[in-house]
Amino acid sequence: MANQEVVNRKIVLRDYVVGFPQKSDLVLVSNEKIKLEVPEGSENGVLVKNLYLSCDSFMRDRMSKDCSYIPPFIPGEPITGYGVAKVVDSRHPEFKAGNLVWGLTGWEDYSLIMQREPLIKIEHTDVPLSYYTRILGMPGMTAYFGFMEIGSPKKGEYVFVSGATGAIGQLVGQFAKLTGCYVVGCAGSQEKVDLLKTTFGFDEAFNYKEEQDLDAALKRYFPEGIDVYFENVGGKMLDAVLLNMRNHGRIAACSMISQYNCEQHEGVQNLFMVVIKSIRMEGFVVFNYFQRYPEFLEFTRQSIKEGKIKFVEDKAEGLESGPTALFELFTGSNTGKQVVVSRD
Amino acid sequence: MANQEVVNRKIVLRDYVVGFPQKSDLVLVSNEKIKLEVPEGSENGVLVKNLYLSCDSFMRDRMSKDCSYIPPFIPGEPITGYGVAKVVDSRHPEFKAGNLVWGLTGWEDYSLIMQREPLIKIEHTDVPLSYYTRILGMPGMTAYFGFMEIGSPKKGEYVFVSGATGAIGQLVGQFAKLTGCYVVGCAGSQEKVDLLKTTFGFDEAFNYKEEQDLDAALKRYFPEGIDVYFENVGGKMLDAVLLNMRNHGRIAACSMISQYNCEQHEGVQNLFMVVIKSIRMEGFVVFNYFQRYPEFLEFTRQSIKEGKIKFVEDKAEGLESGPTALFELFTGSNTGKQVVVSRD
Repeated sequence: MANQEVVNRKIVLRDYVVGFPQKSDLVLVSNEKIKLEVPEGSENGVLVKNLYLSCDSFMRDRMSKDCSYIPPFIPGEPITGYGVAKVVDSRHPEFKAGNLVWGLTGWEDYSLIMQREPLIKIEHTDVPLSYYTRILGMPGMTAYFGFMEIGSPKKGEYVFVSGATGAIGQLVGQFAKLTGCYVVGCAGSQEKVDLLKTTFGFDEAFNYKEEQDLDAALKRYFPEGIDVYFENVGGKMLDAVLLNMRNHGRIAACSMISQYNCEQHEGVQNLFMVVIKSIRMEGFVVFNYFQRYPEFLEFTRQSIKEGKIKFVEDKAEGLESGPTALFELFTGSNTGKQVVVSRD
Repeated sequence: MANQEVVNRKIVLRDYVVGFPQKSDLVLVSNEKIKLEVPEGSENGVLVKNLYLSCDSFMRDRMSKDCSYIPPFIPGEPITGYGVAKVVDSRHPEFKAGNLVWGLTGWEDYSLIMQREPLIKIEHTDVPLSYYTRILGMPGMTAYFGFMEIGSPKKGEYVFVSGATGAIGQLVGQFAKLTGCYVVGCAGSQEKVDLLKTTFGFDEAFNYKEEQDLDAALKRYFPEGIDVYFENVGGKMLDAVLLNMRNHGRIAACSMISQYNCEQHEGVQNLFMVVIKSIRMEGFVVFNYFQRYPEFLEFTRQSIKEGKIKFVEDKAEGLESGPTALFELFTGSNTGKQVVVSRD
């Protein structure tokens, strides 16, 4: 087995992207073979077979050369993202063949992972494995710590979530309900608005594309103002939210997807409200919280088992379907898929 | 004495200001007389003789009708601000004739103060009374709680203060040095830059008006980046600072004087940095901290007595000199004066 050579298909970035990415920026390459063992000299290396790969909005940023907060993808190499995988061979003392893991891996059949962080062993298989790319993985942790820690919600408070049908936003809304908050989400289509209200239990939801005046829309949904804003989009929405925050409100700045490009960013005009209303606006990246994964896992697994958290999965079959799935996310036509590389 | 009628001169706002205020927007009125007693029916009223009135930048905002975070001044009535005064008569159980107090009062010889908050009795007269309008009053508290609480500085960190020669900024720099930080300030003239370095002990200072490229200037003074930014100006400076913050940096958003007008605010482009660098940006108003005045007073009085904090006072003699003193502050030609109404 160890000496067996197999084809290792990869989804490769053709070149750095300028402007909005195109599907053709990613190419499937099938002409490489690898041995199914960690090569000599790769101390602490872990070779995994990828099972599920997650399509996440932050990946768009990594396709551009200069505007990433984590290093950009490397042209000619497979792109990377969060996934669930099975260990095939390991030179790392904490992992052995057969272990299931989740963490950053490559968009390819097999990946040699040299970085221990973040690679987390999956101990509980009483939920579908694919959950570890989403609700029990990075988006789940981002929603949990961003909302619970940075948002510091209290029972009865008013919560607004932008980009609410995204993998993170849909969970923030549900964590808000579990905390006893009133929660409103916005999204980009009537179908998504319905999903928020019927499936995810948001108290209200609206389609921001149909609102001429975002400030007026927010005043309609929040006559008392907003205590916690979970920021997923930036730009004009943030400006409107600032006008509607309550005193001592909190803005958990998770990402600003409307600003994910290298061009001139939209200016935010109403920052003075931060002073006037004693607002705390705090950015975070999920890496800050990996050491607290067990706390999150305990809470969220329990909530899933008790049926208190709903999660909608959307899957694309086969590594070759990855580029299309990813670009559907970037254009907003879906809420993010898992790419199934192998169910093994 | 109580029945004695005296002239009560007032500095009155002529009308709401549109755009930049002019000296002529304020008028001295000397045709009113009052009795030196709290009128019947004014329960809890305190009649004070004003001794020192402080010129503060937030007063500019209150001259406009619609862009204040506290209610605007009322045309035809005296403007108000922080001052030191002596109680002449009181129907409030906590104050009696002869007490010295500081708090919000009117720009007039005598004021009838109906609001208990914020009116603080002065217990310590071993420092000049005028200090209670500035270093031991509102600007001092703003600097102390804004920097120490919101800024959460640690020894050895890099601190940047904009508007650094203002009553608040000069104290922030000194609190930063007392905490063991490296501190750089910016101001609008070479004279002010010298003041920061020689009198207030800033490690470095620069004249922002002479910098073509604020980002480059900050990179020069902070090759390692900025841990704490004490925000006094907003706009372009904030944009440049965002590019130079370190991971987990804190921005204490005290006021944004460059934005104090009702016109279109400058957009801030680089807010995405808040996410990328896990920055906490938090606004505050000093009212949030009045209950903690004794803690601030203890620390700051002690530091003054030990010569660890320097404070430069600039006085304008006579209530009638108030409008000129205030407008010199707005145009940046001085760092803020006390107006001496009476030394009694």
